[in-house]
Amino acid sequence: MQVKDRNSWEILREHLEQGDTAGLNAFLAGLSGEDSLRALMRLDAEEQKQVLGLLTPESAADVFEFIPDESAGELLGELAPEVAASIVSEMPSDDQADVLSELDEEDLEEILRYMDHRDVGEARELMAYDEDVAGGLMMKEYFSYPRAYQAGAVLNDLAGREEEYELNHVQYIYVTARAGELLGVARIRDIIFTRPETRLVEIVQPALTVEASTPLEELEDFFDEHNMTAVPVVDGANKMLGVVRRRAVYDAVAERAEADHLKSQGIVGGEELRSMPNSVRSRRRLSWLSVNILLNIIAASVIAQFQDVLSAVIILAVFLPIISDMSGCSGNQAVAVSMRELSLGIIKPADFYYVWRKEVTIGMINGVTLGVLIAGVTWAWQGNGWLGLVVGAALALNTVIAVSIGGTVPVVLKAMKVDPAIASGPILTTVTDMCGFFLLLGIASLMLPMLTGG
Amino acid sequence: MQVKDRNSWEILREHLEQGDTAGLNAFLAGLSGEDSLRALMRLDAEEQKQVLGLLTPESAADVFEFIPDESAGELLGELAPEVAASIVSEMPSDDQADVLSELDEEDLEEILRYMDHRDVGEARELMAYDEDVAGGLMMKEYFSYPRAYQAGAVLNDLAGREEEYELNHVQYIYVTARAGELLGVARIRDIIFTRPETRLVEIVQPALTVEASTPLEELEDFFDEHNMTAVPVVDGANKMLGVVRRRAVYDAVAERAEADHLKSQGIVGGEELRSMPNSVRSRRRLSWLSVNILLNIIAASVIAQFQDVLSAVIILAVFLPIISDMSGCSGNQAVAVSMRELSLGIIKPADFYYVWRKEVTIGMINGVTLGVLIAGVTWAWQGNGWLGLVVGAALALNTVIAVSIGGTVPVVLKAMKVDPAIASGPILTTVTDMCGFFLLLGIASLMLPMLTGG
Repeated sequence: MQVKDRNSWEILREHLEQGDTAGLNAFLAGLSGEDSLRALMRLDAEEQKQVLGLLTPESAADVFEFIPDESAGELLGELAPEVAASIVSEMPSDDQADVLSELDEEDLEEILRYMDHRDVGEARELMAYDEDVAGGLMMKEYFSYPRAYQAGAVLNDLAGREEEYELNHVQYIYVTARAGELLGVARIRDIIFTRPETRLVEIVQPALTVEASTPLEELEDFFDEHNMTAVPVVDGANKMLGVVRRRAVYDAVAERAEADHLKSQGIVGGEELRSMPNSVRSRRRLSWLSVNILLNIIAASVIAQFQDVLSAVIILAVFLPIISDMSGCSGNQAVAVSMRELSLGIIKPADFYYVWRKEVTIGMINGVTLGVLIAGVTWAWQGNGWLGLVVGAALALNTVIAVSIGGTVPVVLKAMKVDPAIASGPILTTVTDMCGFFLLLGIASLMLPMLTGG
Repeated sequence: MQVKDRNSWEILREHLEQGDTAGLNAFLAGLSGEDSLRALMRLDAEEQKQVLGLLTPESAADVFEFIPDESAGELLGELAPEVAASIVSEMPSDDQADVLSELDEEDLEEILRYMDHRDVGEARELMAYDEDVAGGLMMKEYFSYPRAYQAGAVLNDLAGREEEYELNHVQYIYVTARAGELLGVARIRDIIFTRPETRLVEIVQPALTVEASTPLEELEDFFDEHNMTAVPVVDGANKMLGVVRRRAVYDAVAERAEADHLKSQGIVGGEELRSMPNSVRSRRRLSWLSVNILLNIIAASVIAQFQDVLSAVIILAVFLPIISDMSGCSGNQAVAVSMRELSLGIIKPADFYYVWRKEVTIGMINGVTLGVLIAGVTWAWQGNGWLGLVVGAALALNTVIAVSIGGTVPVVLKAMKVDPAIASGPILTTVTDMCGFFLLLGIASLMLPMLTGG
């Protein structure tokens, strides 16, 4: 076999055609997570379904770990419910809930019917929470023991649950009081080092906890400050509900940053992969584009008010898109810095004035620089100094406006609980376009005698 | 004290003015990492210097952990070298190297002079590597023992180094052969469970290793596949150089994604925080804007070739910025999806044709939809069906061009080893603007009789 010359999805397809289950499992086991995702995404929907049906549930679950949640949910919905259920059963409970909540009601119930009774209860519990609070991020796999248990008994029990234990890199066990409320935590290390007959109550240490409603930002803060791999989640009565892993928090933060970036570039309403159906991709992109085209028409209607100025100085039409694009660039820089400072926690909605003051300075420096630059180029190009002055002044003023809006709009939207990643760009572009067109054509109309006489 | 009504930086400033070192340390210790960063960034450069000088080196190092590397390097350069050295000495070696490599030669040497001899050697070694390979990400804090050591002796040694041990969440020790090459790894857990007189060689397990030149992407893959908290780095002779922590890899991946996002929005040449000097912020933003303004002028020069058409149908000027903006929007969506698929590893440079084929379909669907939409609006607004047809056709065709370019340019740039995050946007905008202006005005010139007669 000339494996080197062929693409991984072609090899997958070949195994599939030959019904070579063993070969398929072996081949995918040899690929990295990234490569198996790449291979799978290049197959068509029917082939993907067949491949996942032929894999052992463990291998399929390993592949699923690398598939973004939404696509994972879609794939799962395509599979026979008993196959889907066997794959989901191999995932840790926090991943289970993430994937299952992407399914529609009907597919979900079909799949849950084939799952273990206890897993179903846990999945339903986790899905009831928002995905960006501790309840939605937590997992149900943890070890807790009553306070009267002895260290030796705990070690024996853990030894019998070696696989579970290994899988989750356990470093702590949780100690509960009589009514089931969380008493504290004991490190595996301490349990090992102590005498076997030591009762847990003797070595338990107070545990830091979070509530199910604790938002992602606070969890991120928590793990930045505390060198722990997981934190217990408790309810109002201090009963333990689950644990949130550090890794789950960092993954969720990374996913949100990625989603914010996509949204700012006009990919809204969910993640997009090119393996998705064209109808879904097109519809989502259009939902964003159609709003933008209307905003664009509104902004450009300013130009229609100045047709007499344009008729008189037709070359001004060249500078309309330049003013629009450049103001967009300057404004987007300010948006990017604000989004970053918001996510780092350096600025908060109350810091509106600080942000504006900082931006307006940069706006003036850059506005004057860009204004002088384009004035010079215009003069040299069109041989008309007055035209250069008009274009330069409009760009300079509009740059100040653009960075002021770009810097502050994310802060204001955040304060208004509107998603700044989605809304900042269109607001910025529409307002700066309107101002830019108005400034260029308005100044030109004031200086019309100089422009036409030049 | 009405602490609640005052901002954290005002309280910091007050402690500073009163020279209240203890109060300062206590106050900062009570803040979250995010809040202490926010407070510090709102002080001016002189005050920041004073605060960091008054903190204990441990507290200052804790604050530094949250400051982005470049800003951290800048701050460090401002401090007295002996103060800077005492703070750096409290950081783990991988963070040390990151921060120190942001310093200029002179500041660096000044600070190294005050650092421990061994730390200096390690820092120089780590700084010699690129920051996105295993060598640049690794830390020198790890525990290794000769193969003949006994489990009991190892535990004794570890107990004596409790602080170091605790600090780094050690789960493995490394076992070396006679000439110092890495023999393998032993889990702390296994060492504890075995008889004290067991020699390491009896329980050592083969270790997965990476080389110092292993790139970040492969490390990310590695940790996705292996449930390990750290991996040993070896040289060609299998001698151990250090360990790369899972956390360092994920942090580096997140930082790179963040930097890519900022670059795509025109923040290039380094991170920007509003606490940086205006001259630096302005210069960096201008470096990007000045390239863009030239590209914009080149693109708009297409319009200047069609002044006669514009004179005849002045309303066309309204649609120039719309075509430019909308094509930019459509193209940026495709760029965002390609950047994401590149970073997920789903597409590689060889997949150019696949990407183009997938995009062109969406381009045609969305182009026709947007074209019909704007044609209808134009007809209704301007009462000229021919004008609607011209604008609609231009937008439809240019949308196909924009998504084709947007989807494939990142892939091509990646193949050419040019950073797609920086270059995709300007290339996209310039080419689609030129095509869009040419299409709108070109089609209009062909249909001039219908447009002027309408």
